[in-house]
Amino acid sequence: MQILFDRIRKDGIVKSGNVLKVDRFLNHQMDIELFREIGKEFKRRFSDVEINKILTIEASGIGIACVTAEFFHVPVVFAKKTKTKNIAGEVYTTKVESFTHGTVYDIIVSKEFLGKGDKVLVIDDFLANGKALDGLTTLIRDSGAELVGAGIVIEKGFQEGGRRIREKGIRLESLAIVDSMDEKTGEITFKNE
Amino acid sequence: MQILFDRIRKDGIVKSGNVLKVDRFLNHQMDIELFREIGKEFKRRFSDVEINKILTIEASGIGIACVTAEFFHVPVVFAKKTKTKNIAGEVYTTKVESFTHGTVYDIIVSKEFLGKGDKVLVIDDFLANGKALDGLTTLIRDSGAELVGAGIVIEKGFQEGGRRIREKGIRLESLAIVDSMDEKTGEITFKNE
Repeated sequence: MQILFDRIRKDGIVKSGNVLKVDRFLNHQMDIELFREIGKEFKRRFSDVEINKILTIEASGIGIACVTAEFFHVPVVFAKKTKTKNIAGEVYTTKVESFTHGTVYDIIVSKEFLGKGDKVLVIDDFLANGKALDGLTTLIRDSGAELVGAGIVIEKGFQEGGRRIREKGIRLESLAIVDSMDEKTGEITFKNE
Repeated sequence: MQILFDRIRKDGIVKSGNVLKVDRFLNHQMDIELFREIGKEFKRRFSDVEINKILTIEASGIGIACVTAEFFHVPVVFAKKTKTKNIAGEVYTTKVESFTHGTVYDIIVSKEFLGKGDKVLVIDDFLANGKALDGLTTLIRDSGAELVGAGIVIEKGFQEGGRRIREKGIRLESLAIVDSMDEKTGEITFKNE
């Protein structure tokens, strides 16, 4: 997706520790015209399968998921990050380890909004070590819904998440797969360019 | 906005303590076709003013803000809730008291994404005591941007937020203003129906 590669090069900032900041257009300030192109591309890639729900995780996945959902004509459910103890039985819940913050948090989805008969596409902004996607996969499995695939905007191809998730047999479509980033020159190469 | 009144009556749940749960279509599961209608209505109501940025707050405002932004052709910035100490100088920050959780949290917006020359429309799902909107107003003022108005999906008209914010001279457009809710019968009346 050339406009995405170009945009990451133009506005992405490579920081130490393999951090790629894209908050100018993806996850703090959000370029909705770009989100339209992203949503259209996800629809193109998943046009051969039936999907009746999009699942994402707060907060930065929500915008992309909502704009993408317009092309699929399905509702979006977002998993909530929480520290609140929830009444057993009302929600599906699992733990997720945060790569960025070095913490563990719970994610929850109400049982009312995920279950048998749901054909779920997961949408998220980033895939690095894949822990968030693992968590969402667990919630989907626990609910009896079917995970049809996952659409990711930026995958860090040099981290293990993508490989591990593809090995599980999950259909994973990443629009930009970063192969390498140079903190000094700012140069970014993509595996799928 | 009749389809919104109807939907709140159909899928909203009145709980004790003046709680209105609308997570079937607004802030956990999200009905994107409804969001399109909401976005269109905000555009109609704010069609007479210049807006070049939409500001919202994570997490449940993000989806509505993004779909609304498609009608305004402007980017969205969302204020982040955080407990992280941020380096002074990089962000605008203020404290917000949570009505729902009885806690105080910090919200931040990077200085890069809000400033002089920005004509800002605030979009959020709920207005009750108005503390989140107060916080966003503070960030906008501190940044030198101009607050053009605020678009709210559901205002609890029996709480003080709306009155207080209108008295400040802020242009506030709430699509559904709840006048009263009956926990026993589930009956909901709207001020603007």
